[in-house]
Amino acid sequence: MSGSRLDPWVDSYAQRTAGMQASEIRALFAVASRPEVVSLAGGMPFVQALNMEMMAATVSKLLMERGAIALQYGSGQGDVVLREQILDVMAEVKVTAHPDDIIVTTGSQMALDLVTRVFCDPGDVVLVEAPSYVGALGVFRAYECDVIHVAMDDEGLNPEALTEAIAKLGAEGRKAKMIYTIPSFHNPAGITQSQERRTRILQIAKSAGILLLEDDPYGLLGFEGEPPAAIRAQDEEGVIYLGSFSKTIASGLRVGWAVAPHGVREKLVLAAESAVLCPSNYSQLTISEYLATQPWRKQIKTYRELYRERRDALLDSLDQLMPTGTSWTKPAGGFYSWVTLPHGLDATAMLPRAVQQLVAYVPGTGFYIDGQGRQNMRLSYCYPDPERIREGVRRLAGVIEGELEIAATFGTSSALRNSSGTNVPAPDLA
Amino acid sequence: MSGSRLDPWVDSYAQRTAGMQASEIRALFAVASRPEVVSLAGGMPFVQALNMEMMAATVSKLLMERGAIALQYGSGQGDVVLREQILDVMAEVKVTAHPDDIIVTTGSQMALDLVTRVFCDPGDVVLVEAPSYVGALGVFRAYECDVIHVAMDDEGLNPEALTEAIAKLGAEGRKAKMIYTIPSFHNPAGITQSQERRTRILQIAKSAGILLLEDDPYGLLGFEGEPPAAIRAQDEEGVIYLGSFSKTIASGLRVGWAVAPHGVREKLVLAAESAVLCPSNYSQLTISEYLATQPWRKQIKTYRELYRERRDALLDSLDQLMPTGTSWTKPAGGFYSWVTLPHGLDATAMLPRAVQQLVAYVPGTGFYIDGQGRQNMRLSYCYPDPERIREGVRRLAGVIEGELEIAATFGTSSALRNSSGTNVPAPDLA
Repeated sequence: MSGSRLDPWVDSYAQRTAGMQASEIRALFAVASRPEVVSLAGGMPFVQALNMEMMAATVSKLLMERGAIALQYGSGQGDVVLREQILDVMAEVKVTAHPDDIIVTTGSQMALDLVTRVFCDPGDVVLVEAPSYVGALGVFRAYECDVIHVAMDDEGLNPEALTEAIAKLGAEGRKAKMIYTIPSFHNPAGITQSQERRTRILQIAKSAGILLLEDDPYGLLGFEGEPPAAIRAQDEEGVIYLGSFSKTIASGLRVGWAVAPHGVREKLVLAAESAVLCPSNYSQLTISEYLATQPWRKQIKTYRELYRERRDALLDSLDQLMPTGTSWTKPAGGFYSWVTLPHGLDATAMLPRAVQQLVAYVPGTGFYIDGQGRQNMRLSYCYPDPERIREGVRRLAGVIEGELEIAATFGTSSALRNSSGTNVPAPDLA
Repeated sequence: MSGSRLDPWVDSYAQRTAGMQASEIRALFAVASRPEVVSLAGGMPFVQALNMEMMAATVSKLLMERGAIALQYGSGQGDVVLREQILDVMAEVKVTAHPDDIIVTTGSQMALDLVTRVFCDPGDVVLVEAPSYVGALGVFRAYECDVIHVAMDDEGLNPEALTEAIAKLGAEGRKAKMIYTIPSFHNPAGITQSQERRTRILQIAKSAGILLLEDDPYGLLGFEGEPPAAIRAQDEEGVIYLGSFSKTIASGLRVGWAVAPHGVREKLVLAAESAVLCPSNYSQLTISEYLATQPWRKQIKTYRELYRERRDALLDSLDQLMPTGTSWTKPAGGFYSWVTLPHGLDATAMLPRAVQQLVAYVPGTGFYIDGQGRQNMRLSYCYPDPERIREGVRRLAGVIEGELEIAATFGTSSALRNSSGTNVPAPDLA
């Protein structure tokens, strides 16, 4: 057997495995999970807002009445009753479909994996927002895609930049396989596309013949008025829509879904059966029972109000405490605000100092494939309560002020070496 | 947009997707799921043997005491307490490990997917038994592996055939990436490797420097004496061991695991986080609570006795009813017996007639990559009760006798065209 003493199989791995290395900041986050640290890093929904007695009663009823089904293998495509109920949920964002168009997955992360598996050969181009969801970048890298970032503006993915990227590829004789976008309450940017913007992006994708992959985990968690209509509401054949119960019910159930054009959906089901045989009936039927017997729209309203209060706490304290030169986005829903530090500061380099001062965030570099984002950080307000959020921002403001002093004295803050690897997200950072 | 009217994206799929086609027999199995059909096809465990009141009480306690954890994202590697409990379960097959060596997956099917993802580039060779588990073949094909079958004998994977296959590859300047084997109560062959055979196969793998992938979903379900010691009990660095709760507790929870050498395990965790972020805490903690508070060894004993009774019903009725020239394996555990039809009969061609006569099985061709197995079928005795099993065998014997008459008259039974595609298993056929 060849290989090293540490890993005798080191010479045996597949090509795609070469880039799989834990991000350097993971060790820091192990420290950051200590209770004395205010974490503005994680993307954990506040599932404590669920009534656990109600959940226990729901599951007990399910097991007593349909235990032999809930604990058995199910269909690779997912439970048909749940797929019908998902139509009711998607009606909130104006998506209409047939239950046959839906495939249920082990979280929408798995749907991302399956779509990429079915469409992307090594070297295929995927266009993504700059910045983009760290978990999607991880999937595209795992399938050895060529990820190209497209600029965002205040309304989200920039149509001129998108057109330009497509034209540039065309001039090289290349064509993107997919455009990946999060139109509502963007992770990490905290930006929402207007309806006009959505229409424009769809038109660009369709006229270029490029598949639009619409990721919508936060769509029902808007703080102002009706949830934004999904891009998929405008078009059936050109869009794959990804949804999730992780943020509207509970992330620990690991249930998400994809809505795809018929031919694509067939491929996704075959890929899913190869990957996991079938999604968990236990999780699926728990959600189905919950949707059938509990006031789920009221629960989502509770979540919305909870997260709005926390968003307000974050934005208010940023307003009050952040040094001049710092800016941030003002999310109208979802979990995140995207912060730009004063010129010369480096959020990656600053992280160890922040953790030392008992506050954590995710540095912006994690959300790019190409080393951009050093001046940025993602702050999440989903998990800590308002008082903790304010305390976290207070500590963070202190750290930034300290860095500014160092920069003023030495010209620049200390640099951390570039992080390497796929930056696969830790689950609670997603 | 190019592509066909039926599927506008038909020209956009990845190379690997080309082979993903539903097996032709799937439509037949949709018919075979009707209650009047005795299905000897499915691999569904008889989860009705669980006490549902006990399961409901277990989950209620979990949600009331630890609901905020059970419904939240968890670690990509899996819950640490569950990983410790898995050590107790694996002690039954003499595997010793550290909780750090274990990764929990969405069923052991996902562990198969991850191992293949981490090790296999397109064209890489995987050596598998002839026949082998249909779900593993699906994974190897999905990653475009070159699957090579190695003959089995009465003691399982044949060491001479294995040595020969490795030497033949060596002569071509090639080396297999993995040897995939199911040593205990083989699916579909119903054969168990002796301890001497296990040692021999391990030695061959190690001296060739080839990773041994040991799949052990049925290891605790032996009908005679102690469960066989796993190959992994003999070696830590050369073996990846796959385990599952699907057959010992409940398949609908979708919880399996892999035990891997340290360096490999790290890669598997990164691949898992990219694929699904994390396994379901809800399923994991349900199992953890069950293992901690319920007499799980007694439940496994109940399952063993149930399946032994059904195995006996199958073997007795095969003995009594099968036409001369038919032979079958006598499983000492697990779910399956492998039947060889009289010369000239074709199990694939015969299936429509069998379903018409209200009995179903899985034709042998599904368990080979190369069209072998037309004379074979897999019969499973896990799900129907003994009376139904006897009735199923009675119907099947009638069908075979009918085919023998046709063959005697016309020289051969009618042929079905070769099935194509990846033969991805329907979940209940796994």
